[in-house]
Amino acid sequence: MAINLLPPNFLPPVAGVRLGCTRAFSNREDLTAMEIAPGSTVAGMFTRNSFAAAPVQICRKNINESGGDIRGLIINAGIANAGTSVRGLQDAEKSCQLLADMLGCRAENILPFSTGTIGKYIPMKQFERGLKKCAANLAADNWLSASRAIITGDSVAKGAFQIVNCGEKVFTVTGIVKGSSMIHPRMATMLAFIATDAAIPYRQLALWQRIATAKTFNAISVDGETSTNDSFALIATGQAGRCPDRTAGKIKKAIVEVCEQLAEAIVRDGEGANKFAVIIAHGARTQAACREVATTIAKSPLVRMAIAAGKADAGRLFAAAGNSGHCTQNMSIKIGDVYVIRNGGVTSLHAQARADSVLAGDEATITIELGDSPHSWTIKTCGMTRRYVDKFGL
Amino acid sequence: MAINLLPPNFLPPVAGVRLGCTRAFSNREDLTAMEIAPGSTVAGMFTRNSFAAAPVQICRKNINESGGDIRGLIINAGIANAGTSVRGLQDAEKSCQLLADMLGCRAENILPFSTGTIGKYIPMKQFERGLKKCAANLAADNWLSASRAIITGDSVAKGAFQIVNCGEKVFTVTGIVKGSSMIHPRMATMLAFIATDAAIPYRQLALWQRIATAKTFNAISVDGETSTNDSFALIATGQAGRCPDRTAGKIKKAIVEVCEQLAEAIVRDGEGANKFAVIIAHGARTQAACREVATTIAKSPLVRMAIAAGKADAGRLFAAAGNSGHCTQNMSIKIGDVYVIRNGGVTSLHAQARADSVLAGDEATITIELGDSPHSWTIKTCGMTRRYVDKFGL
Repeated sequence: MAINLLPPNFLPPVAGVRLGCTRAFSNREDLTAMEIAPGSTVAGMFTRNSFAAAPVQICRKNINESGGDIRGLIINAGIANAGTSVRGLQDAEKSCQLLADMLGCRAENILPFSTGTIGKYIPMKQFERGLKKCAANLAADNWLSASRAIITGDSVAKGAFQIVNCGEKVFTVTGIVKGSSMIHPRMATMLAFIATDAAIPYRQLALWQRIATAKTFNAISVDGETSTNDSFALIATGQAGRCPDRTAGKIKKAIVEVCEQLAEAIVRDGEGANKFAVIIAHGARTQAACREVATTIAKSPLVRMAIAAGKADAGRLFAAAGNSGHCTQNMSIKIGDVYVIRNGGVTSLHAQARADSVLAGDEATITIELGDSPHSWTIKTCGMTRRYVDKFGL
Repeated sequence: MAINLLPPNFLPPVAGVRLGCTRAFSNREDLTAMEIAPGSTVAGMFTRNSFAAAPVQICRKNINESGGDIRGLIINAGIANAGTSVRGLQDAEKSCQLLADMLGCRAENILPFSTGTIGKYIPMKQFERGLKKCAANLAADNWLSASRAIITGDSVAKGAFQIVNCGEKVFTVTGIVKGSSMIHPRMATMLAFIATDAAIPYRQLALWQRIATAKTFNAISVDGETSTNDSFALIATGQAGRCPDRTAGKIKKAIVEVCEQLAEAIVRDGEGANKFAVIIAHGARTQAACREVATTIAKSPLVRMAIAAGKADAGRLFAAAGNSGHCTQNMSIKIGDVYVIRNGGVTSLHAQARADSVLAGDEATITIELGDSPHSWTIKTCGMTRRYVDKFGL
């Protein structure tokens, strides 16, 4: 029941990337291998959770040791390989060695990704058999299959792309993502894979990734939790050549745009979500303060329940904003174009009723006006219904 | 449906305090006045929400200006007088003047407290009429009535007391509290009032209050929200005389004990709660780190839903602990006496099943072992069921 979100029906291939998927552990495709051409650069960002899963630990190590010289990815959906101690690390390292042997590279050139149940080991025999099939099926036009093979709790597959014209050259940016709650530890996680055929040196790629992530994957909230396995790999194969310096910004923009679409897709498919909401805080003294206000409001269960119920509850917004510690006494809040709080005071019952009707729709924007500065921060979130509790609780 | 919690059937009077309650705004008692004998000291602690309600702002001002020389309290349940701008402040100041005139003191010697709907004004005519009735009904043995008159969303009234023998002297500490979610902004808030007949200088009283609050009212979590109106007044009338220095610790301990019982009562009556849970983190390098770990786990909706469902979900505990940023890789977690995570790894399915049966009861203790240090922090929380969403959402 994703909110105004359809699965992709086309994802363009990226020269230098081939993908293969297979059924390894269940009766659906749940294992994916990605081959990346020599000379590519790959940057990675990972969960801030102290208990990073075994594959995340190996990813960090291999990216550091190889300086971003990555030749293959493995993604398994169903078992997170988290909370698995030493054996989990050994399994993740062994899986890298297996793909490295198939692709003719070293284990440190492979990145492993996992999502699913915490505390279970990966059945390595099935894994090895599956990986062989993936390697035998590698093809450039398998992005759609991969978008389906990496999901777990998601109700729809998610993908996005951009085509960039830089003078005579044409570059492609294609990405897929999985995730429907920031974590549902027995089933899910956020994993994102984006590739471009532009040539981008590792340091620049890693910088662009950090910038893009801050405003996209790190600016969404479904349930305020952070998984042990969250990972995002950004691949630049260079097969379409270098982009002239003066147009590099176009590639960067396309990467940010794909991140943005994928991040928004996660929220639209949020577990138990019935409405899509954009929270914008602007005018505080610093951008960090704007972010704190928007995040506090987006994470408030009472606010998210009010959004779900279509109730313009000024009291809950007022209290949540006050909890951020960055609010001004003359703050105003509007839902759509209707002020429910103005200059620190709750507005008329008539205004509340008009705001209710704004929230009756599928999508709404809530704007918090904190002052006159040019700073601003946007968080995307969703209304939380009892379906979330039905799935994870009692 | 509070968890193993009955309303108090007796609360001893405190010499120097008289209370009166009446029906001012609804068909139940909802307005309380408290008269405090001259020479008493009163300390106050208030919400950290930036949008402190009007009565909270007046309380802070009056305590500062009078140096704790407080002669009366007013508590109204039903309207929070929050988000009410200048008129809200005027109403709160006027209410102080009204009681001051009745008790023969100045407005700055009165503290006002409100709980209920945000964004509504207090009907001052009904308020004044009610306050006169309260003042006419003042009696020392009205603590039980007051415990009922201050509640809003609570399912039971809450009170606690301690009798302290210091040599030949006997001191009383009596307290009442209201609150069932840290905030439900259209109905509730935490308000606590505790009085003792011991003589305690203002500075010492304020210090004891800070210490007691940190480990009690600030060490509980129902929904992780903080109200605009949270307030706690601690009153020392001195009518039973000074406690000899060497036994002052006994009074302090009794005050902490009453805070503890009242704080626990709030959690046991938590909105949508079906189980009472104690989260203990110990052994981290600092006490602050222990607090961060215990708080992060107690605030995780997925953990609280697992507790509610009686499921010993090691994965959720593991991920939540990791999000605190203070966990060690060899952390262990036990539910009751059963380890579900040991040395950073999830234990056997057999252990998980035994832990499930521990969580099948009404109450459980979850212990996080982080290392060898003597530091420790305890948070009390409750299992969250869909009844919470039913009440506040859709």
